[in-house]
Amino acid sequence: MKATAKAHTNIALIKYWGKRDDTLILPTNNSLSLTLDGFYTTTTVSFRQELKQDVFYLNDEAVTGAAFDRVTVFLDLVRSMAEKPDLFAEIKSTNEVPTAAGFASSASGFAALAAAAARAIGLDLSKSELSQLTRQGSGSACRSIYGGFAEWEQGENKDGSDSYAVQVAPQNHWDIRVAAVVLSDKTKRISSREGMKRTVDTSPFFDGWIGSIPSDLKRIKEGIAARDFTVVGEIAEANCLRMHATTLGAAPPFMYWLDGTVTVMQAVQAMRSEGIPAYFTIDAGPNVKVLYLPENEDVVLQKLRHIPGVQNVTSSKPGQGITYL
Amino acid sequence: MKATAKAHTNIALIKYWGKRDDTLILPTNNSLSLTLDGFYTTTTVSFRQELKQDVFYLNDEAVTGAAFDRVTVFLDLVRSMAEKPDLFAEIKSTNEVPTAAGFASSASGFAALAAAAARAIGLDLSKSELSQLTRQGSGSACRSIYGGFAEWEQGENKDGSDSYAVQVAPQNHWDIRVAAVVLSDKTKRISSREGMKRTVDTSPFFDGWIGSIPSDLKRIKEGIAARDFTVVGEIAEANCLRMHATTLGAAPPFMYWLDGTVTVMQAVQAMRSEGIPAYFTIDAGPNVKVLYLPENEDVVLQKLRHIPGVQNVTSSKPGQGITYL
Repeated sequence: MKATAKAHTNIALIKYWGKRDDTLILPTNNSLSLTLDGFYTTTTVSFRQELKQDVFYLNDEAVTGAAFDRVTVFLDLVRSMAEKPDLFAEIKSTNEVPTAAGFASSASGFAALAAAAARAIGLDLSKSELSQLTRQGSGSACRSIYGGFAEWEQGENKDGSDSYAVQVAPQNHWDIRVAAVVLSDKTKRISSREGMKRTVDTSPFFDGWIGSIPSDLKRIKEGIAARDFTVVGEIAEANCLRMHATTLGAAPPFMYWLDGTVTVMQAVQAMRSEGIPAYFTIDAGPNVKVLYLPENEDVVLQKLRHIPGVQNVTSSKPGQGITYL
Repeated sequence: MKATAKAHTNIALIKYWGKRDDTLILPTNNSLSLTLDGFYTTTTVSFRQELKQDVFYLNDEAVTGAAFDRVTVFLDLVRSMAEKPDLFAEIKSTNEVPTAAGFASSASGFAALAAAAARAIGLDLSKSELSQLTRQGSGSACRSIYGGFAEWEQGENKDGSDSYAVQVAPQNHWDIRVAAVVLSDKTKRISSREGMKRTVDTSPFFDGWIGSIPSDLKRIKEGIAARDFTVVGEIAEANCLRMHATTLGAAPPFMYWLDGTVTVMQAVQAMRSEGIPAYFTIDAGPNVKVLYLPENEDVVLQKLRHIPGVQNVTSSKPGQGITYL
């Protein structure tokens, strides 16, 4: 009744932006990501008869409040699947997703939790079943089941039974790199959950966003298959700009960017004009992730680290999917 | 055969962004502007039998090349309307639209040119006829025929005969102020003409942009009538963000903002959170215009001038329409 799993975070090249079901976490569009070697969570789940409720330790500290509630509500799903509603667990997680890297830890966190909990309670899930379960903890986490490139298929069923990720290309298919560029964030942010909801409900650009996804997905998958960095970079950058554009149209409008975000965006575009292939992508926050090729690592990281306002730059290679320890 | 006219530039609160006819300059949406007292052009046109071609002096310097061609092509329209195809003119313009204020001078320039040329050649045009003529020199110039608030009605006719501006409220209706905030611009810009075209042709957000205009227009006109600064400011700011969002969706995407643009936008939003009503609007470039009320002039201008990267801040009151000197 005990298992340990390790999962890596991922960066979306085609963004998940919009839900059609808030409870089941069903998206309004397919998304596509690269799993990253550098940032991961390791989680041990032990189900024990003597426990009267779940207990959750993150980096050796007991967690309570909303973060605990989200974990225990997720474990209720696992218990329900295993038909063991009264079996509680001790969860011990270690996060190697430094806040300073500007990634949310929910993707690696829920992927590791789902994998460890399912195995510990005796469920024998396929990867797509595990992805589907993981999705209900954190949407983008469902892509972290796989190494390399993964696509979250939005599905059509109301119960979410066909909404899960599949692998597009494995970790060793193509060595492209991602630099996480962290800026100071003094502004109060709108969570991605709230931002998505406001966008779906009020932005006149939402239909245009959804309409643009199928051709982007088709082309980026062709680009990944052919290892064509220009195609993959251009589509990822354009897709990110479109996602952020939808928020500018919302009522009231909102924006995740800081001035430094624009500085980094323009620095990346300047690298391209100097002949260094590099492209940016930005999630629901001010930090920027920069895609580049291994042979340009030194120059790209050096340039990024010299941009005024940049606090930290951390680079990563493609990562692997779920592993059991 | 000689007349002198003075016209002021205007700032759009509902943006003109998209053409349905490039030659006649017919827009895809209505726009609404405030004419500004601080920035104007004075133009004298003298038609003379002895001239073999037009001659154009801007600020006492003879103009040649593309700028001259645009003026003489426009005067061909005036000659055609007056049925005097072989009568050429001397044009003398003085611009009080400093480049440092970040306004294009084409709005005041073509409004003054149209008014002076039409009067000099003996055409007796109504204001809407003059606006329609002016539109064919520079689209947004057609709003500068009027003082105060003006709306450019896009019209439906293929020949543009119903595409001209009308007055929404006169200059003395409401004293709101506009600060032109100029940033250094080191990037190569995409002209508004080219940017509009790429947006219309490629942006998946263009339909959403067009669809959002009617309710914005209705509400901002109600706000102007009621002198409700919150309504007018919120709509103007949201409309500007939507216009810029369309460019992020274009293929390839483009952006008029610099990092400093975002700094000023966030400074304006910070003023509001401190209780100072102020709103921004941005045209097809990096500079920001800030709307505020007269009683807050000192604090708003002081705060804007202290933003790092701001080169110049120039303020203006509502201006009058065409005057003949």
